[in-house]
Amino acid sequence: MAELVIPIRPMNGGNGLYSYSKNSIIQRKAIEATKELINKTIAEELDVNTFSSSNTFRIADLGCSVGTNTLLAVKNIINAVQHKFQSQGNGTKLPEFQVFFNDQASNDFNQLFTSLPSEIQYFAAGVPGSFYRRLFPKYSLHFVHSSSAAHWLSRVPEEVEDKSSPAWNKGKVHYSNSTAEVIKAFEAQFAKDMDNFLKIRAQEIVHGGLMVLILPGRFNGAPHANNYINKAYELLESSLIDMAKKGMISDEKVDSFNVPVYYASLQEVEAAVKRNGCFNIELMENIIHEKPQPKVMSATFRAGLEGTFKEHFGDEILDELFDKLLYNKLQESSLHSKSCESVYLFVSLKRNTDA
Amino acid sequence: MAELVIPIRPMNGGNGLYSYSKNSIIQRKAIEATKELINKTIAEELDVNTFSSSNTFRIADLGCSVGTNTLLAVKNIINAVQHKFQSQGNGTKLPEFQVFFNDQASNDFNQLFTSLPSEIQYFAAGVPGSFYRRLFPKYSLHFVHSSSAAHWLSRVPEEVEDKSSPAWNKGKVHYSNSTAEVIKAFEAQFAKDMDNFLKIRAQEIVHGGLMVLILPGRFNGAPHANNYINKAYELLESSLIDMAKKGMISDEKVDSFNVPVYYASLQEVEAAVKRNGCFNIELMENIIHEKPQPKVMSATFRAGLEGTFKEHFGDEILDELFDKLLYNKLQESSLHSKSCESVYLFVSLKRNTDA
Repeated sequence: MAELVIPIRPMNGGNGLYSYSKNSIIQRKAIEATKELINKTIAEELDVNTFSSSNTFRIADLGCSVGTNTLLAVKNIINAVQHKFQSQGNGTKLPEFQVFFNDQASNDFNQLFTSLPSEIQYFAAGVPGSFYRRLFPKYSLHFVHSSSAAHWLSRVPEEVEDKSSPAWNKGKVHYSNSTAEVIKAFEAQFAKDMDNFLKIRAQEIVHGGLMVLILPGRFNGAPHANNYINKAYELLESSLIDMAKKGMISDEKVDSFNVPVYYASLQEVEAAVKRNGCFNIELMENIIHEKPQPKVMSATFRAGLEGTFKEHFGDEILDELFDKLLYNKLQESSLHSKSCESVYLFVSLKRNTDA
Repeated sequence: MAELVIPIRPMNGGNGLYSYSKNSIIQRKAIEATKELINKTIAEELDVNTFSSSNTFRIADLGCSVGTNTLLAVKNIINAVQHKFQSQGNGTKLPEFQVFFNDQASNDFNQLFTSLPSEIQYFAAGVPGSFYRRLFPKYSLHFVHSSSAAHWLSRVPEEVEDKSSPAWNKGKVHYSNSTAEVIKAFEAQFAKDMDNFLKIRAQEIVHGGLMVLILPGRFNGAPHANNYINKAYELLESSLIDMAKKGMISDEKVDSFNVPVYYASLQEVEAAVKRNGCFNIELMENIIHEKPQPKVMSATFRAGLEGTFKEHFGDEILDELFDKLLYNKLQESSLHSKSCESVYLFVSLKRNTDA
């Protein structure tokens, strides 16, 4: 596999004002909103007899970040798996659980590890590295969970940063209200990354194992620019442009920056799963999300993007950008109109035994 | 298992002047000095056919800390295992390797993860927690390595901190030149901890799996007070007493503090292995260590003990204690006499299939 450029900085570590652990209520709601769908997937699709020989049930949370969200997600999964084992009459030989918390190597694993409860029902491990690479031995995982993570691309599409390309994203940092070429480049990068993601996971997940992907996205066929999260990015972009106009940052800095995220639709995820061929889709749903208050949204953006922005623009712009300009624009905007929905995609997959 | 008191702070994190990663040459030498013994253990004792069904070879380094030492140890082990697989004619189906780096939850895993080379021959994971607890699923490890770690006790023996006990270690922070009661309490704590350590590892290691323990210790039958490392601790203790005399710390602070370490002999480790019954001893050796220069020794002590001392005495004493008083005493001492050896114990064990 070719070396991937991984320009993304992880969510803010620690426990402070701008930390992810203090500013991830939106991501938490996605975990809460999908709990019953995960329960249903496990109840209906997990064939516990397939795994009874190993006696260890291995779970990975990809892009776990820090704080209580990943702990909650994992707890829910384990409860559902235990329930399934018990209901199939194997209650006496419940498996032991090993949980792998994965995020980039620069994620604040120290914060994560010291926040683990002293009494947990599993053996915990942290796995550093991009989930666009192999992270686990072959056929070693029984359940993979990834929430609010796989909308991060492995990289900014090459052509949008190439001045000589028709897809050069001049004067912008996001794709949704850009040219058709730029949008196409991001669509293609997501397709490529999802292909790679699925190919790798197919190697790591046992036959019969399950994977649940939860990612912020949009309705099938909805224009990118109509989507809540893209609208919010456009406000962030417009804040940066304001700063460039005031001379606080250079135009060149804006031209050379793009956020490596993409908000897909279920159709796009489904197409990738079908191209891959190693997974069956068991459940697929759009989950409409309550739109967050401006204060929450600007803080969530800051906790997630600060590291990436800081590296490119320096840290002196962060307060002005997130807490003032973006916050004001979010307050004044029409993001609360009906036509602009905030959607999470839920997809549960089962590793088939054919491929 | 009852809750254990874990008063120990991990080695200094980061990459700074007093970091473990910059001050662990003594521990590195132990890894270098035991490389051939590990190779021999693997070449002679590892039955690769036993493990060929799983196709993942799982290694744990217990008490790994940070820096390059653990990476070197792991690399040596993997090379030896690969060599063994190849020499048994199974070269075409080399296993994949998964390596678990374990240390306390407050270890600087961030430093460890960001120091992993970008191209490594294994899947890396960090496992937070005391090795006096279960850390891994049943029968999931093929090779356990622990170097310069298991001389740390799970706790200070209760009675040495109990004013009403004949084993109260008044006016002292170490056991080697203390009363017979204090020495006995530390001996008993080591025996208890090693029993617990072996009991837990016997659950985690597959039948036929190997474990190598490398720990600073002393010759069989040698008085505790004759041992280099204990002598060095006595100098540290005497430095603290000097500070108490000068009023820099209170006598009460000295009375209520003990370093939870113990330097065993091979006989003691052997006795614990026999009590346990789940392992066969394959190799056992004393390795004489070059005695470090005073500067190296005081820096090594500081990198390893600073956290524990800081918690009890505050951080204002650290420079004076380690860099001045201890360093001066190490320079003036007779630790370089022949009668006072610095020894590492090497023990390789194989999980038997009987117990």
